[in-house]
Amino acid sequence: MSSNSIGKYFTFNSWGESHGKAIGCVIDGVPSKIKLSETYIQNFLDKRKPGKNKYTTQRKESDKIEILSGVFQGLTTGHPISLIIYNEDHRSKDYLEIKNKFRPGHADYTYWKKYGIRDYRGGGRSSARETAVRVAAGAVARKVIDLKTKKESNIIGALVQIGNIKINYENWDDKFILKNELFCPDKKVLNQWKELIVKARKEGSSLGAIIEIRASGIPAGLGEPVYEKFDSDIAKAMMTINAVKGVEIGNGFNSVYESGISNVDEMGVKNNKPFFYSNNNGGVLGGITTGQEIICRFVVKPTSSIITKRKTITTNLKKTTISTKGRHDPCVGIRAVPVGEAMMATTIADHCLRYL
Amino acid sequence: MSSNSIGKYFTFNSWGESHGKAIGCVIDGVPSKIKLSETYIQNFLDKRKPGKNKYTTQRKESDKIEILSGVFQGLTTGHPISLIIYNEDHRSKDYLEIKNKFRPGHADYTYWKKYGIRDYRGGGRSSARETAVRVAAGAVARKVIDLKTKKESNIIGALVQIGNIKINYENWDDKFILKNELFCPDKKVLNQWKELIVKARKEGSSLGAIIEIRASGIPAGLGEPVYEKFDSDIAKAMMTINAVKGVEIGNGFNSVYESGISNVDEMGVKNNKPFFYSNNNGGVLGGITTGQEIICRFVVKPTSSIITKRKTITTNLKKTTISTKGRHDPCVGIRAVPVGEAMMATTIADHCLRYL
Amino acid sequence: MSSNSIGKYFTFNSWGESHGKAIGCVIDGVPSKIKLSETYIQNFLDKRKPGKNKYTTQRKESDKIEILSGVFQGLTTGHPISLIIYNEDHRSKDYLEIKNKFRPGHADYTYWKKYGIRDYRGGGRSSARETAVRVAAGAVARKVIDLKTKKESNIIGALVQIGNIKINYENWDDKFILKNELFCPDKKVLNQWKELIVKARKEGSSLGAIIEIRASGIPAGLGEPVYEKFDSDIAKAMMTINAVKGVEIGNGFNSVYESGISNVDEMGVKNNKPFFYSNNNGGVLGGITTGQEIICRFVVKPTSSIITKRKTITTNLKKTTISTKGRHDPCVGIRAVPVGEAMMATTIADHCLRYL
Amino acid sequence: MSSNSIGKYFTFNSWGESHGKAIGCVIDGVPSKIKLSETYIQNFLDKRKPGKNKYTTQRKESDKIEILSGVFQGLTTGHPISLIIYNEDHRSKDYLEIKNKFRPGHADYTYWKKYGIRDYRGGGRSSARETAVRVAAGAVARKVIDLKTKKESNIIGALVQIGNIKINYENWDDKFILKNELFCPDKKVLNQWKELIVKARKEGSSLGAIIEIRASGIPAGLGEPVYEKFDSDIAKAMMTINAVKGVEIGNGFNSVYESGISNVDEMGVKNNKPFFYSNNNGGVLGGITTGQEIICRFVVKPTSSIITKRKTITTNLKKTTISTKGRHDPCVGIRAVPVGEAMMATTIADHCLRYL
Repeated sequence: MSSNSIGKYFTFNSWGESHGKAIGCVIDGVPSKIKLSETYIQNFLDKRKPGKNKYTTQRKESDKIEILSGVFQGLTTGHPISLIIYNEDHRSKDYLEIKNKFRPGHADYTYWKKYGIRDYRGGGRSSARETAVRVAAGAVARKVIDLKTKKESNIIGALVQIGNIKINYENWDDKFILKNELFCPDKKVLNQWKELIVKARKEGSSLGAIIEIRASGIPAGLGEPVYEKFDSDIAKAMMTINAVKGVEIGNGFNSVYESGISNVDEMGVKNNKPFFYSNNNGGVLGGITTGQEIICRFVVKPTSSIITKRKTITTNLKKTTISTKGRHDPCVGIRAVPVGEAMMATTIADHCLRYL
Repeated sequence: MSSNSIGKYFTFNSWGESHGKAIGCVIDGVPSKIKLSETYIQNFLDKRKPGKNKYTTQRKESDKIEILSGVFQGLTTGHPISLIIYNEDHRSKDYLEIKNKFRPGHADYTYWKKYGIRDYRGGGRSSARETAVRVAAGAVARKVIDLKTKKESNIIGALVQIGNIKINYENWDDKFILKNELFCPDKKVLNQWKELIVKARKEGSSLGAIIEIRASGIPAGLGEPVYEKFDSDIAKAMMTINAVKGVEIGNGFNSVYESGISNVDEMGVKNNKPFFYSNNNGGVLGGITTGQEIICRFVVKPTSSIITKRKTITTNLKKTTISTKGRHDPCVGIRAVPVGEAMMATTIADHCLRYL
Repeated sequence: MSSNSIGKYFTFNSWGESHGKAIGCVIDGVPSKIKLSETYIQNFLDKRKPGKNKYTTQRKESDKIEILSGVFQGLTTGHPISLIIYNEDHRSKDYLEIKNKFRPGHADYTYWKKYGIRDYRGGGRSSARETAVRVAAGAVARKVIDLKTKKESNIIGALVQIGNIKINYENWDDKFILKNELFCPDKKVLNQWKELIVKARKEGSSLGAIIEIRASGIPAGLGEPVYEKFDSDIAKAMMTINAVKGVEIGNGFNSVYESGISNVDEMGVKNNKPFFYSNNNGGVLGGITTGQEIICRFVVKPTSSIITKRKTITTNLKKTTISTKGRHDPCVGIRAVPVGEAMMATTIADHCLRYL
Repeated sequence: MSSNSIGKYFTFNSWGESHGKAIGCVIDGVPSKIKLSETYIQNFLDKRKPGKNKYTTQRKESDKIEILSGVFQGLTTGHPISLIIYNEDHRSKDYLEIKNKFRPGHADYTYWKKYGIRDYRGGGRSSARETAVRVAAGAVARKVIDLKTKKESNIIGALVQIGNIKINYENWDDKFILKNELFCPDKKVLNQWKELIVKARKEGSSLGAIIEIRASGIPAGLGEPVYEKFDSDIAKAMMTINAVKGVEIGNGFNSVYESGISNVDEMGVKNNKPFFYSNNNGGVLGGITTGQEIICRFVVKPTSSIITKRKTITTNLKKTTISTKGRHDPCVGIRAVPVGEAMMATTIADHCLRYL
């Protein structure tokens, strides 16, 4: 029960450092006879890949996925699927400066405090680079969900706020999300966001973001009270993503502004099937999915790697300052979108295997 | 690995229904030779107990805790501690009406859908009554924390918002919290909150709330990257509490309004020890505690049990309406405070046993 | 993940000491809508109950089982089933002598060494009394197996050797097993065994035994390579029973005397279904059940509680001797039969829930 | 909680098929700052390596281990250690014949039945080739044990019986074990064993064996009652090894021939420390280590891959016969010795991390 492993039935065990030889994961619990190829997984990785445009890090990684086990003649065998991505563009020299300094807002201090040693190159294990393998695991998870639910599900993520600029939900357009570099669902805010990002980069600063993940086509009944509820597993999964500081389901924190009268989702019958007049609960009641769309949001704090000098200390407890150069995302929330989708997918797959 | 069990090293396995014979839990992982008595645990339960004042449910439960195992001559033995609370005031008749109806906003529909059977009396297993055993487990967890950290920690919860009325953090007063029935830390909003509650009850409605839990005296180094981070375990733990729809750490969702420059917690040296100039990260960096105060907030949606009629359906899929009588909390967030403290304590204890 | 809990899907969490208030367990993972009553479970407990005849301990326990949760109107609800047995006949005074002495062959020394404290009354947590709750869990497990396999399975245990006297397998008679106090399947050795036991008691000594557990009607496909194989889980389960020092499957240790030619179970086809010409592998190949009868044996060492004086030491490291009085089984292997059946049942139920 | 993962604190997650691209594992729970190199691990792998002599399989594998993560500048970082061994000499053509036939005694039938698909090349995932990664994990485990016990432990395995020829324990010679190809501790039986093996190969048959693993220098206190006892975890670990059909501790099955008087290990005091006059319990009492030498034996059935024709069926349920050619061990028990050592080491490391 490795702490680098998540899930109870659909599990993946992640390994690797930002500037080590490779990163990868071992996925287990996947039923046999599912069609699975490197090309299929690669599609999802390409969505997250760094260096694609000027709004994300300039690190160039082809992020080429390789399947090492668990697939025979194009089909899963029911045995562990080992995936590997070799690291390529690791300019570790960029990190020599931080060898003896703690980057504030990062895990540098806590890793050093806990382990007494740290692979300072690119943050080592604490790097967001680790999330590439989550995206790969998420791709496999989608196959499991489709198999178990016997219908096509849709898991899609989008940014809903960057800095102080929110989308207007009425403009939400699923198709537009994949057509722009910022996973923006609202055509009207896209340019404002781009300006915000350019400005933040110029100022040597960075921006936070809120991501929303929606999953439709997910059957009722997923989730195991009282400590492995669907939403508590989602909360955990999202909170493991780098820089995430909050998670909410449905109305989330806004439900404090609702009354009991307005907030309950009333029920009716349509075509002889139960339905809900609203979805304030985000598709989860009592920790179990209702069959409605699942709605989850999480916040990603502003990237801590900034050029502006900040006060910090050395490993010898001397005061100093730091300006993090390297190649960084001015808004790491952007690349968190496919990662959020992946964690949603792996959590759903896990619960599908438990229940369906 | 029961889904009614939580924790990896400090674990508790909860059982029991609202109107069954009893509720209880089995706590395991507690080191031997800790002084433990029923009186000590009872103190914590009394804080959560229903029927104490007019702002909470009128159900009368003495919630008398009994230790059945794991303690010998006043000391823990290292073996499982079985705790039991017998149910007393279960007026199950109140629930006959809901036998064949789903209370909207509750787990009635999802339980019925998942299990095909439900103990409708008071919500059965989905009732917030289950949280009593969490408070008991939290009391034991505090002992474990003190033993492992070798200093006195302080875990304290408070309400910070009811409906649309927030506290002013500048008025925060730890001592005041325990002196009022609403766990309110700000003397100035207390009466406004009381009025809100009285009004909500009169209107047959209910209110949501935000709870903040703070833990001080917790050492750096707790948390296991990358999937058993301290904050991801906290997120999970809080989200398992009934009616919770969101969790955040430190600045949480507000960090979207910060810039990278303002949001990183700069570091310095004081008395030859590292310190942080701010605590926007709520005491957690990279999933590991920094040694600062841990700050967590979660939102509790407005109680779904309200007198106002709401549309719903029967188990036979007929349209109907429901008005939930029973004896309910107009703001269930109030009694969630000691529960949130307990989940914070059990999560910290779990990580203390892993690391210290 | 309490160390007093076993199973991944069908789990039970055991608690309680020999001379504490009560013992019990929390069973989880049981599907909903299974008929379950105290009477049904009691039948299995009565089979194991102490004080039934002169060949077992004279401690009188009614071992009355009580269901505290998880059953509503006679049916399981899918939620944890809490079971409790109050202790009655605990003559703790018998144990005052061992308060400061370690009984050789028992867990006294290791418990004291590990925990620094021990509930010396009847061995506390290390007592075979704990196995009563396993029998209760096993009774519930049988219901789960029947539900999942959709046919009636049969799990039956018997003694196959006491001291140096083995049964003759050709005389095996299922019906005879339940008709005699020693779970003996071979009418011809029964009296020899009785004489052995009477003699051992007279001599202030005790006897070891080998128990065989057979399970038929179990489908092929149970077991999860490569570390949760069906037989590795069985080995673990049996080895947790008090005083067990070895476990084997099928031919077990005797397979060392076979050749590859004689030991493989050849396959054929009968009624258009695969069948095996032999069952040297005891119903398990590659860690997965074959659909054949499952055959497992385990050895129970001679009871360590004997009247004959043995050298030992005090908790203050002084040399002394001890003669364990109390009320003990001259051959604890006898009462291990229903316990072995129970562990077989819970392991099968666990794997049924994983696979079927 | 992958079923290809073992251990609670010291864990390893194994993956890979006999004739796939590679095999490997992810080890987690290893404390930081332990010196670890590929050379060190390679030493242990070389001990198990196939193709070394005429008594084992002629498959040639260099079994070159590569560390992909978790080690920085020669020291462990506290993060997952990913290990990989590329497969080289996979003559998959040898296996075309078995594509549509089940090899009796193997996992072919059960894998096909469970998964509906199987990587027939060399047994795929069910191949003993998987055990190479266990040996690598065992090497790392030894480092953990030494760190936690603060002294040097010794874990050594040997064959004690092949076919019907047992060693004489009085001739046991630790040094001799590593000097002969059969891990034989008794110079006097070595040649008889060699003759047996040559004869078995000539006859197109194979031999079973009993392996004994001893661990000294292991402190008292390891093991977690009542379901994660030291010996139950050992039993499980050994039973996961391919072809193992039985496990015993200390006197094991022979304890049935002992009396309570002779079998208890009496205690005394020497140099002000407790000691035992005998070790019939194999270093474990009540599931907890006593500080004595740990003694465990397991039986490996005769290799099922034999040249002699055996009856079997095809995947289409037609009767046929099979003669397994390939390159096989006439006594697979020989190469099980380092694997048994490894499983002992990983289990001890796991319990060291829990307790020390």
